[in-house]
Amino acid sequence: MGILCDIAKKPIGVFDSGLGGLTVVKELIAQLPQESLVYYGDTARVPYGTKSRSAIIKFSEENAEFLIRKNVKMIVVACNSSTSYALNRLRAKFSVPIIGVIEPGVRKALALSVKKRIGVIATSATINSGKYQTMIRRQCPGVFVGAQPCPLFVPLVEEGWSEHAAAEDIARQYLFELKKAKIDALILGCTHYPLLKNVLEKVMGDTVYLVDSAREVAQEVRRVLERKGLCSAAVKPRYDFFVSDRPQDFERIAKRFLGRSVKIRLRNG
Amino acid sequence: MGILCDIAKKPIGVFDSGLGGLTVVKELIAQLPQESLVYYGDTARVPYGTKSRSAIIKFSEENAEFLIRKNVKMIVVACNSSTSYALNRLRAKFSVPIIGVIEPGVRKALALSVKKRIGVIATSATINSGKYQTMIRRQCPGVFVGAQPCPLFVPLVEEGWSEHAAAEDIARQYLFELKKAKIDALILGCTHYPLLKNVLEKVMGDTVYLVDSAREVAQEVRRVLERKGLCSAAVKPRYDFFVSDRPQDFERIAKRFLGRSVKIRLRNG
Repeated sequence: MGILCDIAKKPIGVFDSGLGGLTVVKELIAQLPQESLVYYGDTARVPYGTKSRSAIIKFSEENAEFLIRKNVKMIVVACNSSTSYALNRLRAKFSVPIIGVIEPGVRKALALSVKKRIGVIATSATINSGKYQTMIRRQCPGVFVGAQPCPLFVPLVEEGWSEHAAAEDIARQYLFELKKAKIDALILGCTHYPLLKNVLEKVMGDTVYLVDSAREVAQEVRRVLERKGLCSAAVKPRYDFFVSDRPQDFERIAKRFLGRSVKIRLRNG
Repeated sequence: MGILCDIAKKPIGVFDSGLGGLTVVKELIAQLPQESLVYYGDTARVPYGTKSRSAIIKFSEENAEFLIRKNVKMIVVACNSSTSYALNRLRAKFSVPIIGVIEPGVRKALALSVKKRIGVIATSATINSGKYQTMIRRQCPGVFVGAQPCPLFVPLVEEGWSEHAAAEDIARQYLFELKKAKIDALILGCTHYPLLKNVLEKVMGDTVYLVDSAREVAQEVRRVLERKGLCSAAVKPRYDFFVSDRPQDFERIAKRFLGRSVKIRLRNG
């Protein structure tokens, strides 16, 4: 029991290829205010969504090892590309509980979809992995699933052009087939996409639920911590943020994502 | 003399963050058909244009070391971001001649511009380095220089949407100030941008010269080889292509760039 208490005090580790995973951090802070967090963004190799399976597995293992050295009690893979390709590998390699971003979003979409017609938009790596499609069909055989890679969405968000006319042009083209397929729930399978919510709602119309996984992931983290007796009782949690490149720029962007100023450090080991 | 002959037989090394440097390879093959080439694209860490100075220097040194191990007689840095930040460092570190992509394009732009009003478009890293601006002003004091980062152009080209309506929307916004400044030469300061030539011409109009550095770089390579007595007399040159990720995908794209099929290998050392 004493050992469990000691483990419970440890931080939760969260990694992403870059900045998008901060949407998950924001939800974790809101839903689990007593938990300490260590975030790692691999900004030197971002984006992962255009990289190969083997590269994504290698990078994800290295990121998880960094967090393990930071003594975390759990790892949240806040990157859809990493979850798609590396989740099983990470679970086999490390003994701490590891939570991905795909399953919680899938459960939410299935709960919301009345017509059982679900769309998924994500990076090319995530869509090509087939993970979303397989998991949706496994949980609800017979459901219609439409999947569309949207590689221009991440750079559009990073350029700050989420509301630009070009964003709507691009969204209309990407979403054309999904709209025609009359889906009623659309999973935003990339942590950047919630920032395009206005454009996506405009293009899809108000009969389609948009599923942002961040909130569902935080709920899943809480469930797993409770089940394993690992919830922290800390009064003053500690937040540490690390990146592999551009810590200063990241501080500005983190403030936009989190609504608060944080100190970001360059990883050095 | 015998030693020089041996060196002359060695290949020219070319590196880029990804695929864009193949535009330079194509010109080298056309202009210097007797030279063997080793190309290296760092596709595991592409793009460089959004990364920091220190990351770009580190990656560039590692790329150059890989080429040196492949026994090259010269290195062409076919990446504007690497040239901007790492060219001097590479010249200090390695003894082979090292050629960047910036100076040849600047010379061409100054030769073409009658009004001495020059625009440069490139990635954020290249523009923020100030290298183009400084070099143009050093070679022609008093010239007007307008510089505009265009971070969405690379993903647009890689998505194959160079002719899409969104590309024109985005180009109109990026080029608005340069058009207003009445430049008469526009340097395409990124090896991907020549693939947007139609859109750029449409937006800028036919009174503006578009300067694609690839041809000028190949001419500079020839001049340096001649000056140093390092021109190859090989009858059958050898071309080797290496990448750090996704060799198969790269083969398809390389065919589009080069107009011929080539074998691409994953680097393993």
